[in-house]
Amino acid sequence: MEKDDKSALHVLDGVNQPSQVNPYLNFDIMPKPRQLKAEDYIQGIVAGDRVLLSQAITLIESSLPEHYKLAQSILEGCIPYSGNSIRIGITGVPGAGKSTFIEAFGKLLTAKGRKLAVLAIDPSSERSKGSILGDKTRMEELSVDNNAFIRPSPSAGTLGGVARKTGESLILCEAAGFDTIFVETVGVGQSETAVGNMVDFFLLLMISGAGDELQGIKRGIMEMADLIIINKADGDNLKRAELTKNQINNALTLFPPPPSGWKPKALTVSALFRENIENVWKLIHDYCSQTKENGYFDHNRTTQSQERFYSFMQEELLTSFYSDTIVNEKIKEAQNDMLCKKISAYQAGYKVLETYLKRKNK
Amino acid sequence: MEKDDKSALHVLDGVNQPSQVNPYLNFDIMPKPRQLKAEDYIQGIVAGDRVLLSQAITLIESSLPEHYKLAQSILEGCIPYSGNSIRIGITGVPGAGKSTFIEAFGKLLTAKGRKLAVLAIDPSSERSKGSILGDKTRMEELSVDNNAFIRPSPSAGTLGGVARKTGESLILCEAAGFDTIFVETVGVGQSETAVGNMVDFFLLLMISGAGDELQGIKRGIMEMADLIIINKADGDNLKRAELTKNQINNALTLFPPPPSGWKPKALTVSALFRENIENVWKLIHDYCSQTKENGYFDHNRTTQSQERFYSFMQEELLTSFYSDTIVNEKIKEAQNDMLCKKISAYQAGYKVLETYLKRKNK
Repeated sequence: MEKDDKSALHVLDGVNQPSQVNPYLNFDIMPKPRQLKAEDYIQGIVAGDRVLLSQAITLIESSLPEHYKLAQSILEGCIPYSGNSIRIGITGVPGAGKSTFIEAFGKLLTAKGRKLAVLAIDPSSERSKGSILGDKTRMEELSVDNNAFIRPSPSAGTLGGVARKTGESLILCEAAGFDTIFVETVGVGQSETAVGNMVDFFLLLMISGAGDELQGIKRGIMEMADLIIINKADGDNLKRAELTKNQINNALTLFPPPPSGWKPKALTVSALFRENIENVWKLIHDYCSQTKENGYFDHNRTTQSQERFYSFMQEELLTSFYSDTIVNEKIKEAQNDMLCKKISAYQAGYKVLETYLKRKNK
Repeated sequence: MEKDDKSALHVLDGVNQPSQVNPYLNFDIMPKPRQLKAEDYIQGIVAGDRVLLSQAITLIESSLPEHYKLAQSILEGCIPYSGNSIRIGITGVPGAGKSTFIEAFGKLLTAKGRKLAVLAIDPSSERSKGSILGDKTRMEELSVDNNAFIRPSPSAGTLGGVARKTGESLILCEAAGFDTIFVETVGVGQSETAVGNMVDFFLLLMISGAGDELQGIKRGIMEMADLIIINKADGDNLKRAELTKNQINNALTLFPPPPSGWKPKALTVSALFRENIENVWKLIHDYCSQTKENGYFDHNRTTQSQERFYSFMQEELLTSFYSDTIVNEKIKEAQNDMLCKKISAYQAGYKVLETYLKRKNK
């Protein structure tokens, strides 16, 4: 569907290996897996084989129809083993220190013996090439941690497509035994909603500013957060961070309570000096206990499946609609008539749709 | 498209008039207009003929194809005369006193010589029958005011359909010389976004409660508001209302500033005792001056046209998709497989979509 991952092609063919291979695949040090079957992948993943996990994710991210088919078979085999993790969404404005926080929080969790997978959603940018090195650099300790698995965002595509790839990779990671999943949004975009649909707990990272603390955060994001972290609460910044925390805690009381029954909180943290990180984990732990007890945790997962189902289907329908050549011509024409005040916006919309549906019902 | 307004049929046929005719049409006291042409309607509307305006709106609300065609011709003729009004969206939780406020605010405006049309969006409920009387009762003074025109919400249908009907009626009202338009949302639903796409200024009506003032307001609505009115600021309630106002003003400083450059405000009002209503008008006036000067006012209207175009087109596309019998069967099947953990939510969505698009591309 998307034409955004040509790298997978080379890697999986096993011939003409480019010198810059995906380090997750480690083709240099292992025999070339020419014709693995879905069953081989499934067994490997469930046994915790990271190389096969990486390869399977590459298949999911591929745009080749034959990869798609194989990936979907692997997925079907893994689904029954999925679901046993805490899924944590992490978002934040640029400069809030997301990488440092993920590194600090991730190390804390792996030290506790948890197995952590870090995934990302970034439909906006073309990250296919440099991103892996980028993620390795920005999370130095975590990237060499045996209990952590970092996978960069699938390369650019439609939001629906990218969200699907991340969501299905998440299933594979769970099947491979990862019990904690971070889904990070890179950049500030619409991906927050997509992440909100696939995680149990949603973390918003902020820093204290000059009174406009929420500036730069897309409207509505704050209301999605279960926990708002004011990062960089250290040194000269400590007082200001505390003030911001109080302001946000006040603002939070004005929002309608989320259906989880959990009261969203604000917390100051210094990711750099690894201060107060333990409290983040404690709060997530509390959240899980509370929502597992009141039934929201499982209920939410079912609801989320439904939401993912509908939103993916709708987005792909719209993608197909907007990639239709005749639709595009009609849109230009109708918009022109609308801006010249010849027809209403609704008439313009109707005209385009009529053309599309007529052809459909032929 | 929608089958939701059969009453229009009887009225416009001009035969077998039911005893309970739409009072706006006033067939009892005028000759039966059997075959008026679009041109007749257009001339009448532009000349300010309310009966023809009402009839044209009924045509817009009708689901009969021949009415649709006539209505669209009338609309095309009226569009060049539209646009010269202040469009004000009014929403609020049930019990906030919207009717009383609209009555008080509306009377203030007509006393100033303004011509006011009150429209509504309510996709959720079947209001086609009792609503006219309902609106007459709830706005006693305004409904007999010569400078006011109250039109109830088109009867239930899809949000896209109802929004279109209201949006197109708005154009006709403007062409008929109404210089102030209220678009009210009835009930708390998704209609706020639709209203936000068709008004210049958005008013949110609240009352002070026990600390959970924002409870009952859909997430994100507060961020859409240009002015938040705390109604029922009278008697014993005055102090509490002032406190709520201050809390909201504080919370508002935390939101990102809207693109209009206008700083949203909170204001206490007593609609019942008609106190502070003049200030509402003053603020709207300030808003218009400011946004006309900085260019946002016109820019926003163009953007809104585009948004209405896309959102209407998309909603109608989805409506057509979901009303497809085979799609519905496939959805049930796919959801079942998903809930049994046989396939992922994305696979489920893809399966349904595949069926639909395959047929389309035949």
